[in-house]
Amino acid sequence: MSGSSTGIKALVFDVFGTLVDWRGSIAREARQALEPLGLALDWPEFADAWRGEYQGAMEEVRSGRLPFSKLDRLHRRNLDLVLARLGVDGEVDEPTRVKLNLAWHRLDAWPDVEPGLQALRRHYLLAPCSNGNISLMVDLARRNGWHWDAILGAELARDYKPKAAVYLHACAALDLKREQVLMVAAHSADLAAAAAAGLRTAHIARPDEAGPGRGESAPSVAVDFAARDLRDLASQL
Amino acid sequence: MSGSSTGIKALVFDVFGTLVDWRGSIAREARQALEPLGLALDWPEFADAWRGEYQGAMEEVRSGRLPFSKLDRLHRRNLDLVLARLGVDGEVDEPTRVKLNLAWHRLDAWPDVEPGLQALRRHYLLAPCSNGNISLMVDLARRNGWHWDAILGAELARDYKPKAAVYLHACAALDLKREQVLMVAAHSADLAAAAAAGLRTAHIARPDEAGPGRGESAPSVAVDFAARDLRDLASQL
Repeated sequence: MSGSSTGIKALVFDVFGTLVDWRGSIAREARQALEPLGLALDWPEFADAWRGEYQGAMEEVRSGRLPFSKLDRLHRRNLDLVLARLGVDGEVDEPTRVKLNLAWHRLDAWPDVEPGLQALRRHYLLAPCSNGNISLMVDLARRNGWHWDAILGAELARDYKPKAAVYLHACAALDLKREQVLMVAAHSADLAAAAAAGLRTAHIARPDEAGPGRGESAPSVAVDFAARDLRDLASQL
Repeated sequence: MSGSSTGIKALVFDVFGTLVDWRGSIAREARQALEPLGLALDWPEFADAWRGEYQGAMEEVRSGRLPFSKLDRLHRRNLDLVLARLGVDGEVDEPTRVKLNLAWHRLDAWPDVEPGLQALRRHYLLAPCSNGNISLMVDLARRNGWHWDAILGAELARDYKPKAAVYLHACAALDLKREQVLMVAAHSADLAAAAAAGLRTAHIARPDEAGPGRGESAPSVAVDFAARDLRDLASQL
């Protein structure tokens, strides 16, 4: 299936930031979980602090110092680190931590994503190629009404982006050549790695991903497509 | 998500025979590919012969004699074997073999499957747990209008059913306990292995799977549910 002359058959997507608003959703979830315990934190800052541990935890796996662990498990390690650093370790019980950790399964999509994916699905195979684990991707798709053809990404490859293996496993699972697969992300580093692995690339502008003005409004690397949002990408393709 | 008091959260499905009519579809595809070359074979028998090599090829992987290879590759090995045995090896060129081998991506579903999966999807997570590879599952879903939550099975586990690892990888990918996952199949041996691994089981009657009267009209092992078809299973759950 292909709707264009580009030879592209499948689109694979970064998810956190590109498709979902992790910051606003995690701030909301953290407040819902922790405010009843009497904690009064800056909730967007809490989201930033939790997300701030993300790359470091994955680097432990990418470097081989840790065997592959699902992102849910790394998120839990990071949650414990952040609660300790904030000095509220003793105030957050285990059931609250378990529930809050699954906040990443309850993130809300940017408003263009559901109609954009529907339009793209008419002409292309669609799959996430995220560092999130399979169950996390399944829950986000159910919550936000997405129809993926498959769940690809880190758990299938048993390694984390931007390692080339993750992009290459996605292409291999679909039996496609690398140049037939378009990696879609709001992060230039992800796209640079995908391009180095041989995939085509599309940048989506999310200028406010990590707060007002703290996101990429344009790619800082060469890409095949640069789009305002997923609907714009669909019309460009 | 759960629509019943059984504790079941997800249904995972055998595909060949349980959801799709491999025999009728392969007979049709073989005829379309080979008749133009002047071959006049008994097409349903050709389908039986090709399918007849299925377990033996997978046993090479299950036993460790072969490293994991996708089912598409095993199907190709089996196609070459069958063409040689029929004495038509020299009459079938390479492009025809490549195209015919992908006939397994073009199988048609039994008529109850699409409405049955739609009904089940309202209450459960749904995924194939097949020995078919991911791209094969993706193509069957597109052809037959199925909406899976994820593609699980042999390629994720890098081993073949009825090895326990395949069922257990499916449960682990969904972050579910084994008793929260219902394996659905038309084959008692598949269900016996799933039950031994700790999953719940549902048998679907496909009495004519391999030709008239050559299929299971009832399970020959203990199962949690026995259904006439997927709509019947949906109403039982």
